[in-house]
Amino acid sequence: MPSFSEKLEDAVRAKKTPALIGLDPRYDMLPDELKRSGCSCCGESRHHEDYLNPETIATAFGQFCYRIIDVVAPFVSAVKPQMAFFEQYGSMGLFVLENIVQYAQQKGLLVILDGKRNDIGSTAAAYADGLIGAKSSIWGGDALTVNPYLGDDSLEPFEQIAKERDAGIFVLVKTSNKGGAMLQDIIADGKPVYQHVAEYVESRNVSDASANGYGNIGAVVGATWAEQLTELRAIMPHTWFLVPGYGSQGGSAKDVAGAFDANGLGALVNNSRGIIFAYKTGEFVGKFDRWEDAVLAATQAMIARLAADTSAGKL
Amino acid sequence: MPSFSEKLEDAVRAKKTPALIGLDPRYDMLPDELKRSGCSCCGESRHHEDYLNPETIATAFGQFCYRIIDVVAPFVSAVKPQMAFFEQYGSMGLFVLENIVQYAQQKGLLVILDGKRNDIGSTAAAYADGLIGAKSSIWGGDALTVNPYLGDDSLEPFEQIAKERDAGIFVLVKTSNKGGAMLQDIIADGKPVYQHVAEYVESRNVSDASANGYGNIGAVVGATWAEQLTELRAIMPHTWFLVPGYGSQGGSAKDVAGAFDANGLGALVNNSRGIIFAYKTGEFVGKFDRWEDAVLAATQAMIARLAADTSAGKL
Repeated sequence: MPSFSEKLEDAVRAKKTPALIGLDPRYDMLPDELKRSGCSCCGESRHHEDYLNPETIATAFGQFCYRIIDVVAPFVSAVKPQMAFFEQYGSMGLFVLENIVQYAQQKGLLVILDGKRNDIGSTAAAYADGLIGAKSSIWGGDALTVNPYLGDDSLEPFEQIAKERDAGIFVLVKTSNKGGAMLQDIIADGKPVYQHVAEYVESRNVSDASANGYGNIGAVVGATWAEQLTELRAIMPHTWFLVPGYGSQGGSAKDVAGAFDANGLGALVNNSRGIIFAYKTGEFVGKFDRWEDAVLAATQAMIARLAADTSAGKL
Repeated sequence: MPSFSEKLEDAVRAKKTPALIGLDPRYDMLPDELKRSGCSCCGESRHHEDYLNPETIATAFGQFCYRIIDVVAPFVSAVKPQMAFFEQYGSMGLFVLENIVQYAQQKGLLVILDGKRNDIGSTAAAYADGLIGAKSSIWGGDALTVNPYLGDDSLEPFEQIAKERDAGIFVLVKTSNKGGAMLQDIIADGKPVYQHVAEYVESRNVSDASANGYGNIGAVVGATWAEQLTELRAIMPHTWFLVPGYGSQGGSAKDVAGAFDANGLGALVNNSRGIIFAYKTGEFVGKFDRWEDAVLAATQAMIARLAADTSAGKL
């Protein structure tokens, strides 16, 4: 069986793009046709979100994400559902997420669960056991984002289960938000805390890399930090990057150029709101009759920009 | 409405103990009477966990936790379900967790959801909105554990929603595991990273403390670090501590004494496995016919030790 790193390489090469689509549904941003036509509390035709029950919202999230997946699956290698937006609506929201993971994989996509989970010892193992392993876990994620604050012995259960199941993890190194500086940028032993995390992650990949040169323990590095992306690419030559913050958070294709190796491998660049809500915000608003066509146009524009402004053009 | 800090004080004073019971169910540790009597795959009377489906396991987790709650509710102020063990069994496990939260609150307990969640901006807000607020969120937690690696702007949505809803959060400061040292103990600007987090948390409570002197933004500090507990109590005089690691992880009542103020307030001390699996491990194995009686004996022993060896005896 191919490792996660190999599956990721194959998927990126097949679609010739590192574009990753984030599934971050919010009820008030959904197309009107997916919202219920009358409020369950008052019967008014306007939607009264406070009174919508979790089942109604979760069902709409499912319909929305299935259709996003239908649009993007021919063009990209992976999707990244944000677990928070499903967990917000309780177990019903998460039930729909389980179905979305399966639906995306049936369409040939890799699924990176964005949960930023972690805990100690056997509790970390419970998260890893439940969440990663496409054919061998209940959630079935191909990969999971993981928080490093609890240290090496909290990461090891994820690393081990990822290896056993040909799955991956992406460890938060340098996040896209400004406040990340509070802990990540303070200097300890002559280097920022995020570099301590970066060196740990890289060390786990050096001896365990696939033929493509990359291991299964990835790193999250925000698109909003162009300089650090280049610096970290040099420090972490065996590590796949997951780069959030492209688009609505302000990162451009030029900003993420440093995340790639010379062959256009080594990074996935995520765009969530800029793609899935392209009919409501950004350059494609009002240009299409069908909301799915705005999603498609935004996806193709992102792919074109990454190809033009980064080494991903060589894929 | 009383704030979370006030509710916590009231609950601790009413039960005269800072003991907190962790709900960390694992199927192989459950009493035989709660496991299914025949394997669904092979019909053997031994339980074949690999073939048990999530529904069966989740249902058993519910029955187990309801009975634990029945036993401990008269004696303690709060329970702390570990979300990982429910998430491990998918949305069905989490559906049962939703019911456990309600059941515990009906029995008069505060519920601290141990999820160690966090993300950036609006995603952090989605976690907070969904998870905390006993009467005003879908999950209904009175409090939630939160990871600080993403920094101040990731914590703010939790702080704000906690305040609006009379709920609380507990931010990871110094965790009970050895590997926590990897990031938490490295020295930046002359102090360990965990102290940076501690000072941030304390700063949020100083101007927003209840009449009891404590705010709603708590700190997680492991029972395995007696010296740091004392040091952090001095640095964080307005901050409630959630102290894990008592019992099976090696922390004793004497080790946690430094977590309390002179009146026995300021800390909750958690015990999970040492209580809920007291019929399978520890000093009460084989001493009772009913497994619930071992749970009761372990709870009462912990309460007595905390009263004898810490200022909680003054409650």
